[in-house]
Amino acid sequence: MEHFEHELSVLKQRLLVMASYAENAVNRAVEALRNRDDALAQKVKEDDTVLDELEMELDELAIGLLAQAPLASDLRLITVAMKITQNLERVGDEATKIAKRTRELNQEPPLKAASALPQLAERAVRMLRNALDAFVSGNTAAARALVAEDKEVDALNRQILAELEAVMAESPQNIKRCLNLMVVSRSLERVADHAKNVAEEAVYLREAVDIRHSHPSAAPPA
Amino acid sequence: MEHFEHELSVLKQRLLVMASYAENAVNRAVEALRNRDDALAQKVKEDDTVLDELEMELDELAIGLLAQAPLASDLRLITVAMKITQNLERVGDEATKIAKRTRELNQEPPLKAASALPQLAERAVRMLRNALDAFVSGNTAAARALVAEDKEVDALNRQILAELEAVMAESPQNIKRCLNLMVVSRSLERVADHAKNVAEEAVYLREAVDIRHSHPSAAPPA
Repeated sequence: MEHFEHELSVLKQRLLVMASYAENAVNRAVEALRNRDDALAQKVKEDDTVLDELEMELDELAIGLLAQAPLASDLRLITVAMKITQNLERVGDEATKIAKRTRELNQEPPLKAASALPQLAERAVRMLRNALDAFVSGNTAAARALVAEDKEVDALNRQILAELEAVMAESPQNIKRCLNLMVVSRSLERVADHAKNVAEEAVYLREAVDIRHSHPSAAPPA
Repeated sequence: MEHFEHELSVLKQRLLVMASYAENAVNRAVEALRNRDDALAQKVKEDDTVLDELEMELDELAIGLLAQAPLASDLRLITVAMKITQNLERVGDEATKIAKRTRELNQEPPLKAASALPQLAERAVRMLRNALDAFVSGNTAAARALVAEDKEVDALNRQILAELEAVMAESPQNIKRCLNLMVVSRSLERVADHAKNVAEEAVYLREAVDIRHSHPSAAPPA
């Protein structure tokens, strides 16, 4: 059992390591976008393999723990860790998408549009950070607040997409840049969506109650 | 143990029920798109809650089984089932997105563009079906073939997106319809991506080897 406890603490430690990598990937992708930094964008893309490897390492750790007949509370922690891991791996994929679009955007002059994009980026990054804090601290009130905040982020994303669509219609020469910014906006919205998923798992871990889909329009907005 | 075996068979049965619902959702969304059928599109959206509920039911079943100290092979099946369930729930979300965009597209005359979209839809639906068959039959060769096919589907999606971008540039009055078709194309690509994930889990279940990320560019294309 001591061996089990040690492995469980390793799982927790590695999950936090993965969380910091995922958070860092989004932060750097957003910074690369803001500063039109090709090199940083390229680095985000290259470093995504670390998250892919951590996902597999954590799954292996989790399954090794599940094989040791854990108690109910530990069992919940292990399955929650597996779900959070998957969300963090996808957060890395979104960061990679943002980085890829950033490099395309850097090939043209900056477009004065999607003025709310920095706000969306700031909120998505903060939601991810808060969701991971809620998971660590077990603060389910904070976790539930994130589920509500995700709706506001969805609305912000829709507003940005509508604005970019209008810009395209006015000036077709902006279409490529607008499409790249749309992908970035959707990726940031999805980062917030993963943060919401992590928050839902934090609530489940603490209260053993599944709050997924208990709010209207569970499907992510296109 | 007999009780365990019974619960395990229920998990398998319910997973196949969920799989058929997910497959059906995509099939109907594609049919609604092809036939410009608002009513069918609306039905796809409404029925998505069934997949949401099945996801939660299956997670609960799986965790109940994990609490009974399953043998290694059963343990793999249970964790694989949890991952496949999550992918099927997301397939339902993509079907809902396609249905939503179909209803928007139906408000304007049909646009003669994205001629490869029916092919993409056909392939995505077939990949999902084949992935589930590979999971049930344990045919890992078929599963591995799907991982390769996913790259072709990614390329087809990129081709469609490029075509739609060109159409937009030529005629701004087509922008709204092109954007809706882009979302549909990306959703179909993502259905294929989930099919690939299911195929990877099928290989893991049979061979206890994790082939995720073992192929280049693991990040889904934007």
